[in-house]
Amino acid sequence: MTRVAVVGGGQLARMMAPAATAMGVTLRVLVESADVSAALAAHETVVGLPGDDEAVRALLAEPRPDAVTWEHEHIPDSLFAIADELGVPSRPGREALLYARDKIAMRERLDALGLPSPAWRVVETEDDVADFLSVHGGAGVLKTARGGYDGKGVRIVRHPADASDWLAAAADGGPRLLIEEKVAYDREVAMQVARRPQGEVRAWPLVESIQRDGVCSEVIAPAPELTPELQHEAERIARLIATELDVTGALAVEMFQVGGRLLINELAMRPHNSGHWTIEGAVTSQFEQHLRAVLDWPLGGTAALAPVTVMANVLGGAREDLLGAWPGVPDADAKVHLYGKGVRAGRKVGHVTLMGDAVDATRKRAAEVAAWIRDGGDA
Amino acid sequence: MTRVAVVGGGQLARMMAPAATAMGVTLRVLVESADVSAALAAHETVVGLPGDDEAVRALLAEPRPDAVTWEHEHIPDSLFAIADELGVPSRPGREALLYARDKIAMRERLDALGLPSPAWRVVETEDDVADFLSVHGGAGVLKTARGGYDGKGVRIVRHPADASDWLAAAADGGPRLLIEEKVAYDREVAMQVARRPQGEVRAWPLVESIQRDGVCSEVIAPAPELTPELQHEAERIARLIATELDVTGALAVEMFQVGGRLLINELAMRPHNSGHWTIEGAVTSQFEQHLRAVLDWPLGGTAALAPVTVMANVLGGAREDLLGAWPGVPDADAKVHLYGKGVRAGRKVGHVTLMGDAVDATRKRAAEVAAWIRDGGDA
Repeated sequence: MTRVAVVGGGQLARMMAPAATAMGVTLRVLVESADVSAALAAHETVVGLPGDDEAVRALLAEPRPDAVTWEHEHIPDSLFAIADELGVPSRPGREALLYARDKIAMRERLDALGLPSPAWRVVETEDDVADFLSVHGGAGVLKTARGGYDGKGVRIVRHPADASDWLAAAADGGPRLLIEEKVAYDREVAMQVARRPQGEVRAWPLVESIQRDGVCSEVIAPAPELTPELQHEAERIARLIATELDVTGALAVEMFQVGGRLLINELAMRPHNSGHWTIEGAVTSQFEQHLRAVLDWPLGGTAALAPVTVMANVLGGAREDLLGAWPGVPDADAKVHLYGKGVRAGRKVGHVTLMGDAVDATRKRAAEVAAWIRDGGDA
Repeated sequence: MTRVAVVGGGQLARMMAPAATAMGVTLRVLVESADVSAALAAHETVVGLPGDDEAVRALLAEPRPDAVTWEHEHIPDSLFAIADELGVPSRPGREALLYARDKIAMRERLDALGLPSPAWRVVETEDDVADFLSVHGGAGVLKTARGGYDGKGVRIVRHPADASDWLAAAADGGPRLLIEEKVAYDREVAMQVARRPQGEVRAWPLVESIQRDGVCSEVIAPAPELTPELQHEAERIARLIATELDVTGALAVEMFQVGGRLLINELAMRPHNSGHWTIEGAVTSQFEQHLRAVLDWPLGGTAALAPVTVMANVLGGAREDLLGAWPGVPDADAKVHLYGKGVRAGRKVGHVTLMGDAVDATRKRAAEVAAWIRDGGDA
């Protein structure tokens, strides 16, 4: 019996379970507590944190998983060491994952590969910030090298003083900082690929990602007016990263599009919000593909099944009883995914996918359903 | 938290789990033993048989399921009685399920509704059989009223003596018998619908079902050269059955097509092999639709996503290590579903779905992958 261990109990681990079930793969998940999102769906669960060696040994115990993978980047070295000791392949491995955990390491590596980033530099003082702002239009994006997600650890700065508290924290042992050019982009796009250890890489169509308040709100697949040239360039970038960084499993490359140019924003080495559309919208979902990749199985086809697929996130709203709204969903074709998470304002608690022929009409339908669920049916 | 109880631990219960996970519905399954197909995927499991009142009470215990449903027809009256006592709706209910459990009751009811069956009669003696054969071309299909499936409880008879052992068993308290006309059909088709208690019925496209040795081997969706008239007639039949028999949940009507006419062969009031193609091939899968229907939620869209979807069953072959063949599956677009069941020759242990533009090419691809898996990669 093939078995995959997953670290992390959020919705990404949860959504791996249906793919594992179909393939006859047992999914054993290390969950933070028995009531997190993945606990309902996981085939086997171990309760504990990634830094808890006893829990990690239980996760990797006999019957031994064929591989261990992650639904987030916060994996301590001790976990990799235990996996090595027990002979369970870490996929992606420690070296690859570094570039998804540390934005300074990532930028340095991308520069070395000749891949396109926004202008950037490490900053340690207000003078560093002032120097950068003076040559990049007076505004920049300050980021913590580690620990950021969904708009956290990211701040727009227009004056050196805007950075002073984070600079002080960094000097005091907090996360190092970098500043990036504030790109005047046309749109944000994301390229998803998966790579198996044997070397095979497969790419889905490039998608457009629409952010609101620093959080992904909508994904349109394929990106509207996608040209073969843009798809080719996005694939070139993502394939080079996957191969050169020895990524195994899913890789999402979030990018800014400026005319025909692409600039790399973020990397994620796991299934990613920008790929949820693939569950219904592509021949192979990112969750199935991730499992196939970490098992070193041949990868699946990545073609889109409809002219347009739109994914809209459901963010927590004022009401906590949103699950009760499901039965009233006002669109029979909407595919609703709820994550079984407690509702907090702005928290991703589910998503909705709609497939269609036209971008605007499909976006409108997806947004209506997402709002309906958010508002407990009062939309 | 919405919760559905399911009786039966086979692949039909197993494949309800991914749909339940996506909808945030907890699936609690009564499984025959801890190692059956559904046990891996079920969110909560109770081990026991449907006739074991203690197990049934555990299945329906607090937190109380919102409904109880079945993945097979062998539901004892005691189970319905306990569900009634505890206030858990049985969907479908005892009266509806009778017509899927007892072929004589079914034929009588279909006749009363004016729906098209092959010629048939109850038989108790060799003379009854002889009379039937003499007016229906010298051959008939003898069936046990109860307990048959996948070619079991069905026998072609050409002489009254062919029926003598079953007639003796029936006279001795075994299942009653009926004989049906051996229809010279053009092809076998299946119509799937789902109905919710509130009354809404939705139908998928009619499919062609190809049997080998009395077991479904392939399903082609939609049925090749499906005309609007044939779809309309198939829907009319299935909607009438669903409504008049008060079916809740999925209903499959297996039929013989003779020219433009349809004759009803079998009924199944649950997800059915002829609907597995809907997992990837339709907007809403039969498993999601069944759960929505038994919860009395609005039903989902049923449109097909590709010009052709072909489902091929994987039957057990000579080798028992077939799971190991998965990584070698020679078609990146094949969607492979393994049920986690022990391999026995002829047993359904999984299925493969392929979507495409042309019937013949898609059938060929599906058959090749199914054979590859069956033969452990030696095909």
